[in-house]
Amino acid sequence: MGRWQPDARNRLREAAMDLFSEHGFDQTTTAEIAERAGLTERTFFRHFTDKREVLFDGSQALEQQIVSAVASAPESSSPLELAAAGLCAGGEALEERRAFARRRQRIIAATPELQERELMKLSSLAEAMAAALQARGLDRQKALLSAEIGVAVFRAAFERWIAEGQRKTLPDVLREALALTASLASTK
Amino acid sequence: MGRWQPDARNRLREAAMDLFSEHGFDQTTTAEIAERAGLTERTFFRHFTDKREVLFDGSQALEQQIVSAVASAPESSSPLELAAAGLCAGGEALEERRAFARRRQRIIAATPELQERELMKLSSLAEAMAAALQARGLDRQKALLSAEIGVAVFRAAFERWIAEGQRKTLPDVLREALALTASLASTK
Repeated sequence: MGRWQPDARNRLREAAMDLFSEHGFDQTTTAEIAERAGLTERTFFRHFTDKREVLFDGSQALEQQIVSAVASAPESSSPLELAAAGLCAGGEALEERRAFARRRQRIIAATPELQERELMKLSSLAEAMAAALQARGLDRQKALLSAEIGVAVFRAAFERWIAEGQRKTLPDVLREALALTASLASTK
Repeated sequence: MGRWQPDARNRLREAAMDLFSEHGFDQTTTAEIAERAGLTERTFFRHFTDKREVLFDGSQALEQQIVSAVASAPESSSPLELAAAGLCAGGEALEERRAFARRRQRIIAATPELQERELMKLSSLAEAMAAALQARGLDRQKALLSAEIGVAVFRAAFERWIAEGQRKTLPDVLREALALTASLASTK
Protein backbone atom coordinates (compact mmCIF):
# COMPACT_ATOMS: atom_id res chain seq x y z
CA MET A 1 0.00 0.00 0.00
CA GLY A 2 2.88 2.37 0.58
CA ARG A 3 4.14 1.79 -2.97
CA TRP A 4 3.47 4.20 -5.80
CA GLN A 5 0.05 3.48 -7.25
CA PRO A 6 -0.16 4.83 -10.78
CA ASP A 7 -3.95 4.53 -10.88
CA ALA A 8 -4.57 5.63 -7.28
CA ARG A 9 -6.49 8.72 -8.32
CA ASN A 10 -8.91 6.75 -10.49
CA ARG A 11 -9.38 4.08 -7.87
CA LEU A 12 -10.14 6.70 -5.25
CA ARG A 13 -12.63 8.38 -7.55
CA GLU A 14 -14.36 5.06 -8.37
CA ALA A 15 -14.56 4.15 -4.68
CA ALA A 16 -15.91 7.59 -3.76
CA MET A 17 -18.58 7.51 -6.48
CA ASP A 18 -19.70 4.05 -5.36
CA LEU A 19 -19.95 5.11 -1.73
CA PHE A 20 -21.69 8.43 -2.51
CA SER A 21 -24.26 6.48 -4.56
CA GLU A 22 -24.75 3.75 -1.96
CA HIS A 23 -24.82 5.76 1.28
CA GLY A 24 -25.14 9.38 0.25
CA PHE A 25 -22.47 12.09 0.08
CA ASP A 26 -22.93 13.33 3.65
CA GLN A 27 -22.66 9.83 5.13
CA THR A 28 -19.39 9.00 3.36
CA THR A 29 -16.01 9.70 5.02
CA THR A 30 -12.61 10.03 3.36
CA ALA A 31 -11.41 7.10 5.52
CA GLU A 32 -14.12 4.90 4.00
CA ILE A 33 -13.24 6.01 0.50
CA ALA A 34 -9.57 5.16 1.04
CA GLU A 35 -10.45 1.80 2.57
CA ARG A 36 -12.73 0.86 -0.32
CA ALA A 37 -9.97 1.78 -2.76
CA GLY A 38 -7.44 -0.28 -0.80
CA LEU A 39 -5.35 2.82 -0.09
CA THR A 40 -4.58 5.00 2.92
CA GLU A 41 -6.41 8.17 3.86
CA ARG A 42 -3.07 9.92 3.51
CA THR A 43 -2.97 8.88 -0.14
CA PHE A 44 -6.49 10.24 -0.54
CA PHE A 45 -5.30 13.65 0.64
CA ARG A 46 -2.33 13.58 -1.74
CA HIS A 47 -4.84 13.49 -4.60
CA PHE A 48 -7.85 15.48 -3.33
CA THR A 49 -8.22 18.30 -0.80
CA ASP A 50 -11.57 16.88 0.42
CA LYS A 51 -14.30 14.46 -0.67
CA ARG A 52 -16.15 17.23 -2.52
CA GLU A 53 -13.19 17.71 -4.83
CA VAL A 54 -13.74 14.22 -6.24
CA LEU A 55 -16.84 15.63 -7.91
CA PHE A 56 -15.49 19.04 -8.91
CA ASP A 57 -11.85 18.57 -9.88
CA GLY A 58 -12.70 18.66 -13.61
CA SER A 59 -14.44 22.01 -13.61
CA GLN A 60 -11.38 24.24 -13.84
CA ALA A 61 -10.01 22.32 -16.85
CA LEU A 62 -13.46 22.57 -18.47
CA GLU A 63 -13.53 26.31 -17.91
CA GLN A 64 -10.09 26.70 -19.49
CA GLN A 65 -11.10 24.67 -22.55
CA ILE A 66 -14.20 26.77 -23.03
CA VAL A 67 -12.36 30.06 -22.58
CA SER A 68 -9.54 29.15 -24.96
CA ALA A 69 -12.00 28.03 -27.66
CA VAL A 70 -13.76 31.40 -27.39
CA ALA A 71 -10.38 33.10 -27.79
CA SER A 72 -9.56 31.18 -30.99
CA ALA A 73 -12.97 31.19 -32.73
CA PRO A 74 -13.09 32.73 -36.25
CA GLU A 75 -12.94 36.51 -36.55
CA SER A 76 -16.33 36.77 -38.26
CA SER A 77 -18.28 34.99 -35.47
CA SER A 78 -21.43 36.52 -33.98
CA PRO A 79 -21.56 36.78 -30.17
CA LEU A 80 -23.57 33.58 -29.87
CA GLU A 81 -21.25 31.81 -32.30
CA LEU A 82 -18.29 32.76 -30.12
CA ALA A 83 -20.08 31.41 -27.06
CA ALA A 84 -21.09 28.31 -29.03
CA ALA A 85 -17.49 27.63 -30.05
CA GLY A 86 -16.56 27.55 -26.37
CA LEU A 87 -19.47 25.36 -25.37
CA CYS A 88 -18.89 22.82 -28.13
CA ALA A 89 -15.23 22.52 -27.12
CA GLY A 90 -16.40 21.90 -23.56
CA GLY A 91 -18.95 19.41 -24.86
CA GLU A 92 -16.28 17.45 -26.70
CA ALA A 93 -14.14 17.29 -23.58
CA LEU A 94 -17.05 15.86 -21.57
CA GLU A 95 -18.36 13.50 -24.25
CA GLU A 96 -16.26 10.52 -23.13
CA ARG A 97 -17.52 10.80 -19.59
CA ARG A 98 -21.29 10.44 -19.94
CA ALA A 99 -21.62 7.56 -17.46
CA PHE A 100 -19.60 9.49 -14.89
CA ALA A 101 -21.56 12.69 -15.58
CA ARG A 102 -24.85 10.87 -15.08
CA ARG A 103 -23.83 9.34 -11.73
CA ARG A 104 -22.31 12.61 -10.62
CA GLN A 105 -25.53 14.50 -11.42
CA ARG A 106 -27.62 12.08 -9.33
CA ILE A 107 -25.30 12.53 -6.36
CA ILE A 108 -25.41 16.31 -6.71
CA ALA A 109 -29.20 16.38 -7.08
CA ALA A 110 -29.52 14.54 -3.75
CA THR A 111 -27.33 16.98 -1.76
CA PRO A 112 -28.19 20.71 -1.44
CA GLU A 113 -24.60 21.62 -0.48
CA LEU A 114 -23.39 20.11 -3.77
CA GLN A 115 -26.11 21.80 -5.80
CA GLU A 116 -24.98 25.13 -4.40
CA ARG A 117 -21.39 24.33 -5.26
CA GLU A 118 -22.34 23.33 -8.80
CA LEU A 119 -24.27 26.57 -9.29
CA MET A 120 -21.28 28.57 -8.05
CA LYS A 121 -19.06 26.79 -10.59
CA LEU A 122 -21.51 27.57 -13.40
CA SER A 123 -21.67 31.18 -12.28
CA SER A 124 -17.89 31.37 -12.32
CA LEU A 125 -17.90 29.80 -15.80
CA ALA A 126 -20.30 32.50 -17.05
CA GLU A 127 -18.03 35.17 -15.57
CA ALA A 128 -14.93 33.68 -17.23
CA MET A 129 -16.74 33.39 -20.53
CA ALA A 130 -17.95 36.99 -20.34
CA ALA A 131 -14.34 38.11 -19.83
CA ALA A 132 -13.24 36.02 -22.84
CA LEU A 133 -16.00 37.59 -24.96
CA GLN A 134 -14.97 41.09 -23.86
CA ALA A 135 -11.42 40.20 -24.94
CA ARG A 136 -12.92 39.44 -28.38
CA GLY A 137 -14.23 43.00 -28.61
CA LEU A 138 -17.77 42.76 -27.23
CA ASP A 139 -18.97 45.44 -24.83
CA ARG A 140 -19.73 44.34 -21.24
CA GLN A 141 -23.48 44.14 -21.77
CA LYS A 142 -23.31 41.93 -24.86
CA ALA A 143 -20.54 39.82 -23.40
CA LEU A 144 -22.37 39.15 -20.14
CA LEU A 145 -25.66 38.43 -21.86
CA SER A 146 -24.05 36.06 -24.39
CA ALA A 147 -22.14 34.27 -21.63
CA GLU A 148 -25.21 33.88 -19.42
CA ILE A 149 -27.23 32.60 -22.36
CA GLY A 150 -24.38 30.29 -23.33
CA VAL A 151 -24.33 28.74 -19.86
CA ALA A 152 -28.15 28.49 -19.92
CA VAL A 153 -27.95 26.60 -23.24
CA PHE A 154 -25.21 24.40 -21.80
CA ARG A 155 -27.30 23.49 -18.74
CA ALA A 156 -30.37 22.63 -20.79
CA ALA A 157 -28.31 20.57 -23.27
CA PHE A 158 -26.47 18.81 -20.47
CA GLU A 159 -29.78 17.73 -18.89
CA ARG A 160 -30.90 16.20 -22.20
CA TRP A 161 -27.53 14.54 -22.78
CA ILE A 162 -27.51 12.65 -19.47
CA ALA A 163 -31.17 11.56 -19.73
CA GLU A 164 -31.58 7.75 -19.80
CA GLY A 165 -31.66 6.40 -23.34
CA GLN A 166 -30.14 9.53 -24.91
CA ARG A 167 -27.72 8.47 -27.66
CA LYS A 168 -26.87 11.81 -29.24
CA THR A 169 -23.47 13.22 -28.34
CA LEU A 170 -23.15 16.34 -26.16
CA PRO A 171 -21.76 18.47 -29.03
CA ASP A 172 -24.78 17.41 -31.16
CA VAL A 173 -27.27 18.14 -28.38
CA LEU A 174 -25.54 21.49 -27.83
CA ARG A 175 -25.76 22.41 -31.51
CA GLU A 176 -29.48 21.54 -31.53
CA ALA A 177 -30.04 23.67 -28.43
CA LEU A 178 -28.17 26.58 -30.02
CA ALA A 179 -30.24 26.30 -33.20
CA LEU A 180 -33.40 26.12 -31.10
CA THR A 181 -32.28 29.23 -29.18
CA ALA A 182 -32.18 31.23 -32.40
CA SER A 183 -35.76 30.15 -33.19
CA LEU A 184 -37.30 30.76 -29.75
CA ALA A 185 -37.97 34.41 -30.50
CA SER A 186 -40.32 33.55 -33.35
CA THR A 187 -41.84 30.05 -33.39
CA LYS A 188 -44.02 28.26 -30.86
CA MET B 1 -41.84 47.06 23.31
CA GLY B 2 -44.35 44.34 24.15
CA ARG B 3 -47.07 46.22 22.28
CA TRP B 4 -48.06 45.51 18.69
CA GLN B 5 -45.65 47.28 16.36
CA PRO B 6 -47.26 47.78 12.98
CA ASP B 7 -43.96 48.62 11.30
CA ALA B 8 -41.84 46.09 13.23
CA ARG B 9 -41.02 44.07 10.12
CA ASN B 10 -39.73 47.10 8.23
CA ARG B 11 -37.75 48.35 11.20
CA LEU B 12 -36.14 44.93 11.62
CA ARG B 13 -35.27 44.80 7.92
CA GLU B 14 -33.78 48.31 8.02
CA ALA B 15 -31.72 47.48 11.10
CA ALA B 16 -30.51 44.21 9.60
CA MET B 17 -29.47 45.84 6.32
CA ASP B 18 -27.56 48.54 8.22
CA LEU B 19 -25.74 45.99 10.36
CA PHE B 20 -24.98 43.65 7.44
CA SER B 21 -23.49 46.60 5.56
CA GLU B 22 -21.50 47.90 8.54
CA HIS B 23 -20.15 44.66 10.03
CA GLY B 24 -20.81 41.97 7.45
CA PHE B 25 -23.52 39.32 7.37
CA ASP B 26 -21.56 36.67 9.29
CA GLN B 27 -20.68 39.06 12.10
CA THR B 28 -24.27 40.19 12.72
CA THR B 29 -26.51 38.38 15.22
CA THR B 30 -30.31 38.41 15.44
CA ALA B 31 -29.98 39.86 18.95
CA GLU B 32 -28.07 42.84 17.54
CA ILE B 33 -30.65 43.34 14.80
CA ALA B 34 -33.48 43.36 17.34
CA GLU B 35 -31.62 45.76 19.61
CA ARG B 36 -30.86 48.18 16.76
CA ALA B 37 -34.56 48.11 15.80
CA GLY B 38 -35.60 48.75 19.44
CA LEU B 39 -37.43 45.42 19.55
CA THR B 40 -36.93 42.03 21.22
CA GLU B 41 -35.26 39.03 19.62
CA ARG B 42 -38.56 37.23 20.12
CA THR B 43 -40.25 39.78 17.90
CA PHE B 44 -37.55 39.21 15.29
CA PHE B 45 -38.41 35.52 15.21
CA ARG B 46 -42.10 36.28 14.85
CA HIS B 47 -41.26 37.97 11.55
CA PHE B 48 -38.27 36.03 10.18
CA THR B 49 -37.10 32.45 10.64
CA ASP B 50 -33.44 33.56 10.60
CA LYS B 51 -31.26 36.54 9.59
CA ARG B 52 -30.88 35.17 6.06
CA GLU B 53 -34.61 35.41 5.48
CA VAL B 54 -34.39 39.22 5.76
CA LEU B 55 -32.64 39.11 2.37
CA PHE B 56 -34.72 36.39 0.72
CA ASP B 57 -38.29 36.79 1.93
CA GLY B 58 -39.34 38.49 -1.32
CA SER B 59 -38.23 35.74 -3.68
CA GLN B 60 -41.28 33.52 -3.41
CA ALA B 61 -43.66 36.39 -4.17
CA LEU B 62 -41.45 37.35 -7.14
CA GLU B 63 -41.56 33.78 -8.45
CA GLN B 64 -45.36 33.72 -8.20
CA GLN B 65 -45.69 37.04 -10.05
CA ILE B 66 -43.46 35.78 -12.84
CA VAL B 67 -45.24 32.43 -13.14
CA SER B 68 -48.71 33.98 -13.18
CA ALA B 69 -47.70 36.49 -15.87
CA VAL B 70 -46.45 33.60 -18.03
CA ALA B 71 -49.80 31.87 -17.51
CA SER B 72 -51.78 34.90 -18.66
CA ALA B 73 -49.65 36.11 -21.60
CA PRO B 74 -51.40 36.36 -25.01
CA GLU B 75 -52.13 33.12 -26.86
CA SER B 76 -50.01 34.08 -29.88
CA SER B 77 -46.77 34.65 -27.90
CA SER B 78 -43.50 33.00 -28.96
CA PRO B 79 -41.61 31.04 -26.25
CA LEU B 80 -39.34 33.99 -25.52
CA GLU B 81 -42.30 36.38 -25.47
CA LEU B 82 -43.96 34.18 -22.85
CA ALA B 83 -40.78 34.22 -20.76
CA ALA B 84 -40.46 37.97 -21.33
CA ALA B 85 -44.01 38.59 -20.10
CA GLY B 86 -43.07 36.87 -16.85
CA LEU B 87 -39.79 38.72 -16.48
CA CYS B 88 -41.30 42.13 -17.14
CA ALA B 89 -43.98 41.49 -14.50
CA GLY B 90 -41.19 40.58 -12.08
CA GLY B 91 -39.28 43.68 -13.15
CA GLU B 92 -42.26 45.93 -12.39
CA ALA B 93 -42.63 44.40 -8.95
CA LEU B 94 -38.95 45.11 -8.16
CA GLU B 95 -38.79 48.56 -9.73
CA GLU B 96 -39.77 50.43 -6.55
CA ARG B 97 -37.00 48.74 -4.57
CA ARG B 98 -33.84 49.67 -6.47
CA ALA B 99 -32.02 51.15 -3.46
CA PHE B 100 -32.80 48.03 -1.42
CA ALA B 101 -31.81 45.74 -4.32
CA ARG B 102 -28.46 47.53 -4.66
CA ARG B 103 -27.59 47.26 -0.96
CA ARG B 104 -28.78 43.67 -0.90
CA GLN B 105 -26.58 42.78 -3.85
CA ARG B 106 -23.49 44.22 -2.18
CA ILE B 107 -24.15 42.20 0.97
CA ILE B 108 -24.67 39.03 -1.07
CA ALA B 109 -21.54 39.60 -3.17
CA ALA B 110 -19.47 39.76 0.04
CA THR B 111 -20.73 36.43 1.47
CA PRO B 112 -20.28 33.09 -0.38
CA GLU B 113 -23.06 31.41 1.63
CA LEU B 114 -25.49 34.08 0.41
CA GLN B 115 -24.29 33.84 -3.19
CA GLU B 116 -25.03 30.13 -3.11
CA ARG B 117 -28.47 30.78 -1.68
CA GLU B 118 -29.19 33.38 -4.37
CA LEU B 119 -28.14 30.98 -7.13
CA MET B 120 -30.39 28.27 -5.66
CA LYS B 121 -33.31 30.72 -5.72
CA LEU B 122 -32.61 31.61 -9.37
CA SER B 123 -32.38 27.93 -10.24
CA SER B 124 -35.72 27.31 -8.56
CA LEU B 125 -37.15 30.28 -10.48
CA ALA B 126 -35.99 28.75 -13.78
CA GLU B 127 -37.61 25.44 -12.82
CA ALA B 128 -40.91 27.14 -11.92
CA MET B 129 -40.84 29.11 -15.15
CA ALA B 130 -40.14 25.97 -17.21
CA ALA B 131 -43.20 24.32 -15.62
CA ALA B 132 -45.32 27.40 -16.42
CA LEU B 133 -44.10 27.30 -20.04
CA GLN B 134 -44.91 23.59 -20.31
CA ALA B 135 -48.41 24.41 -19.03
CA ARG B 136 -48.64 26.82 -21.99
CA GLY B 137 -48.05 23.93 -24.40
CA LEU B 138 -44.27 23.98 -24.93
CA ASP B 139 -42.41 20.66 -24.87
CA ARG B 140 -39.92 20.11 -22.05
CA GLN B 141 -36.85 20.99 -24.12
CA LYS B 142 -38.20 24.32 -25.39
CA ALA B 143 -39.67 25.17 -22.00
CA LEU B 144 -36.45 24.52 -20.11
CA LEU B 145 -34.30 26.34 -22.63
CA SER B 146 -36.62 29.37 -22.72
CA ALA B 147 -36.77 29.48 -18.93
CA GLU B 148 -32.98 29.21 -18.53
CA ILE B 149 -32.46 31.90 -21.13
CA GLY B 150 -35.14 34.03 -19.47
CA VAL B 151 -33.34 33.84 -16.13
CA ALA B 152 -30.01 34.56 -17.86
CA VAL B 153 -31.51 37.71 -19.42
CA PHE B 154 -32.97 38.66 -16.05
CA ARG B 155 -29.58 38.35 -14.31
CA ALA B 156 -27.77 40.40 -16.93
CA ALA B 157 -30.48 43.09 -16.92
CA PHE B 158 -30.55 43.16 -13.12
CA GLU B 159 -26.79 43.81 -13.02
CA ARG B 160 -27.21 46.79 -15.35
CA TRP B 161 -30.21 48.10 -13.44
CA ILE B 162 -28.45 48.27 -10.08
CA ALA B 163 -25.25 49.81 -11.49
CA GLU B 164 -24.47 53.24 -10.01
CA GLY B 165 -25.91 56.05 -12.14
CA GLN B 166 -28.34 53.82 -14.03
CA ARG B 167 -31.63 55.68 -14.49
CA LYS B 168 -33.52 53.34 -16.78
CA THR B 169 -36.24 51.27 -15.12
CA LEU B 170 -35.86 47.51 -14.74
CA PRO B 171 -38.68 46.74 -17.21
CA ASP B 172 -36.94 49.01 -19.76
CA VAL B 173 -33.53 47.41 -19.18
CA LEU B 174 -35.17 43.98 -19.46
CA ARG B 175 -36.85 44.87 -22.75
CA GLU B 176 -33.50 46.11 -24.13
CA ALA B 177 -31.80 42.89 -23.04
CA LEU B 178 -34.53 40.80 -24.66
CA ALA B 179 -34.19 42.74 -27.92
CA LEU B 180 -30.41 42.34 -27.74
CA THR B 181 -30.84 38.59 -27.17
CA ALA B 182 -32.71 38.25 -30.44
CA SER B 183 -29.83 40.01 -32.24
CA LEU B 184 -26.93 38.10 -30.66
CA ALA B 185 -27.16 35.30 -33.19
CA SER B 186 -26.35 37.65 -36.06
CA THR B 187 -24.61 40.94 -35.22
CA LYS B 188 -21.31 41.62 -33.53
